[in-house]
Amino acid sequence: MPSLPSLSEDALQTYVAGSRDRWLAELSAFLRIQSISTQSEHAGDVRQGAEYLRDALKRIGAERAEIVPTGGHPLVYAEKMVSPDKPTVLFYGHYDVQPPDPLNEWTTPPFEPTVRNGNLYARGSADDKGQVMLQLNAVEALEKTAGKLPVNLKFIFEGEEETGDANIAKFVPENKDLLKADAVIVCDTELFEPGLPTLCIGLRGMVYTEIEVEGASHDLHSGLYGGVAPNPLQTLSWIIAGLKGRDGKINLPGLYDRVVPPGAAERASWQRLPFDSQKMLSDEIGSPALEGESDLGELERMWARPTLEVHGIAGGYTAPGAKTVIPAKATAKVSLRLVPDQKPDEVMAMLEKRVAELAPKSVRATVRLIHAADPLLLDTNHPAMTKAAEVFAQVWGKETVFVRSGGSIPVVALFHEHLGIPSVMMGFGLPDDNLHAPNEKFNLENFYKGSETIARFLAAFGSAKGK
Amino acid sequence: MPSLPSLSEDALQTYVAGSRDRWLAELSAFLRIQSISTQSEHAGDVRQGAEYLRDALKRIGAERAEIVPTGGHPLVYAEKMVSPDKPTVLFYGHYDVQPPDPLNEWTTPPFEPTVRNGNLYARGSADDKGQVMLQLNAVEALEKTAGKLPVNLKFIFEGEEETGDANIAKFVPENKDLLKADAVIVCDTELFEPGLPTLCIGLRGMVYTEIEVEGASHDLHSGLYGGVAPNPLQTLSWIIAGLKGRDGKINLPGLYDRVVPPGAAERASWQRLPFDSQKMLSDEIGSPALEGESDLGELERMWARPTLEVHGIAGGYTAPGAKTVIPAKATAKVSLRLVPDQKPDEVMAMLEKRVAELAPKSVRATVRLIHAADPLLLDTNHPAMTKAAEVFAQVWGKETVFVRSGGSIPVVALFHEHLGIPSVMMGFGLPDDNLHAPNEKFNLENFYKGSETIARFLAAFGSAKGK
Repeated sequence: MPSLPSLSEDALQTYVAGSRDRWLAELSAFLRIQSISTQSEHAGDVRQGAEYLRDALKRIGAERAEIVPTGGHPLVYAEKMVSPDKPTVLFYGHYDVQPPDPLNEWTTPPFEPTVRNGNLYARGSADDKGQVMLQLNAVEALEKTAGKLPVNLKFIFEGEEETGDANIAKFVPENKDLLKADAVIVCDTELFEPGLPTLCIGLRGMVYTEIEVEGASHDLHSGLYGGVAPNPLQTLSWIIAGLKGRDGKINLPGLYDRVVPPGAAERASWQRLPFDSQKMLSDEIGSPALEGESDLGELERMWARPTLEVHGIAGGYTAPGAKTVIPAKATAKVSLRLVPDQKPDEVMAMLEKRVAELAPKSVRATVRLIHAADPLLLDTNHPAMTKAAEVFAQVWGKETVFVRSGGSIPVVALFHEHLGIPSVMMGFGLPDDNLHAPNEKFNLENFYKGSETIARFLAAFGSAKGK
Repeated sequence: MPSLPSLSEDALQTYVAGSRDRWLAELSAFLRIQSISTQSEHAGDVRQGAEYLRDALKRIGAERAEIVPTGGHPLVYAEKMVSPDKPTVLFYGHYDVQPPDPLNEWTTPPFEPTVRNGNLYARGSADDKGQVMLQLNAVEALEKTAGKLPVNLKFIFEGEEETGDANIAKFVPENKDLLKADAVIVCDTELFEPGLPTLCIGLRGMVYTEIEVEGASHDLHSGLYGGVAPNPLQTLSWIIAGLKGRDGKINLPGLYDRVVPPGAAERASWQRLPFDSQKMLSDEIGSPALEGESDLGELERMWARPTLEVHGIAGGYTAPGAKTVIPAKATAKVSLRLVPDQKPDEVMAMLEKRVAELAPKSVRATVRLIHAADPLLLDTNHPAMTKAAEVFAQVWGKETVFVRSGGSIPVVALFHEHLGIPSVMMGFGLPDDNLHAPNEKFNLENFYKGSETIARFLAAFGSAKGK
């Protein structure tokens, strides 16, 4: 491997080591803010999250750190410009978090950050507050040890990543000059396994919907009307069963037409990854067996195949005991993950058509789009990508692997389309971080080492490119 | 039609007319008590309901009116014995009510009884507090106008009818002497149409269950694990779709083997009923079309065919917005209505077997029985039944019709089995009373006329039978 860049290793490492307790305290304060963006009663908390982040940016000497109002939750923008001759890196992250329910499954409360076994447990610890804060740590550490930053920096953080409401999708195209940069750093992904430098080059897209079925004009007694009245919960079951088979195939005509299978080189690289599906089953999932398209490998199913999931079904009676009701209405939250070259609008149209076909004439069924995102596959030969891979390998002592994520980060497609620059997805989460689930955690070694990695990437990117 | 029995019509009618306001006030006070038996936080209210009823029984001069503790909500017992030479009538009803949710669909609050257009709106008004109180009204009116009751009376009221927990199912076999009677009067059914005297002679049975599906050991992110992890909500959809087809047929092998089709005479009497399925659809149901076994008539489907309904599906995320979760676990409340000669234990075994077949090996699926009841068909030639039909016709001025109910009243099977007596189901509700739904109501004319009808039945039954 090539040697590390010119800044003093010892100085940087020493600085990081000396900052651990303070950085942990700062992150913990951030995590105590219940910035749940999908729940309107937490709008004030989301605002407080933005304010905390603005102040943290000011602490590391950012200029014009400010809260930018949107139609929804605000953005936080800041910059630290050193010279027009230097390249510019744009940092992206999100300060909002998923709802914490079911609360009773948390070992310690979701908004009381707690360290156990070297991990920090809290909602948002890995997704994404921990990874936002390590970007700020990196800038602080580099400036303090190198004396002067070798790159210009811009920061754009949003508070709606978990909602899909995406006011950033308006902001980016309307502020191309403000955001102009040579590359984006996105810390919102994970290492393939502990200690393995990992760059994510592919993301699945998303069509998130709510299917509503209306039957009778009011709730009915199942004794009196069972046998003649439509039951929207039964209808939803027919629809959902009709959308996906036990073989994992999604029954939307035309859905697979645009799916581009991974190439031979990418397939070969996946073969070399330290991946064991039985280990994933036992360590990460814990169900009796895996499910899905058994004619394809697990990595291909998670990264390069469209999937359909039901996230919740509402309607009728679910409290303890028995209620013999036929509900008038029921809804299901159903999403599809998309892969290149699928188009969200085309998939939404297929879903609407299929739901209409699957619903009997005794009910009214509608599909409402909640949010959508394009799938994406990045160019591994871009200079920011090659430099990131190089530095990542140097700091962690292992060759960097390129993977995809089955998740969706809509903003990456946005930066690609409107700013014409790639997003280097160097995230420091781990596969068992329980994102979107109870007991979310972030590994503290990754928090500190991630801070160092980003610092060294900035140093390398700044010195490698004269602009 | 034969003339009315010997007590003074005018005196009884005058007494009923003069008692309307007081009876309405007494019923309203009863309805303000939130005796929701399925919700443990309302246990105190259920107790208060029992106390109210005991005191009301004391007011009409009942002896030994008392609250009888059980393993769950208490029973209320009372009696009014006039002579060992007279026949004995046992009154049954329930003072518990269904949960009122969804609350936002009520025009006026469920526990603030409100009169609109001659109807009393409140949870429990028709099911069953209004019908319990008219039994007490009848006793009071008869005694005040006839001077002396011509029958012995016993009263047994329960607070668990809506739960299916059925401590009365232990009490009845253990207290056969206490409850010994010649007939039971059950006021918990409805008129076939307004003004039409109706006796219910058949009830469907019930198997009410909760199906639980467990997949992963914890909630998962659908981006990261969509394509390989089982989704219990998807599994439930496959199971529920597999249990019932779009043709209304229930896919449980053997389920229909014991179903006894209605005989020719009963079918012919159904033909004569003032029933219009399109009117039911528009006035009572309000969905775009009816559903179910289209090869059979609607009355047969509601009264003489087993049905399967889903009452609620829990698991995952159903609050506003989007959460991309694959829930670890999901449950569905699923019940079957049974008809003669189906057996609840056999049907439960069929359901368990079928659910096990329908669940993929990636999940654990279990079926838990919440409660069960036998179906029943009564003998229309029993003296209590013929006398009830006669008096009902006299008071209301129309020939009494015999119908079945698609609902389940487990206690009727209990009285039949352990006391060896029929339950005369003379109820005064109406088809659009919104039982178990928002805006439950009870027609006030039926409340008063029902009080008179029961009074005249007691007079007729007492004079017709020397014992």
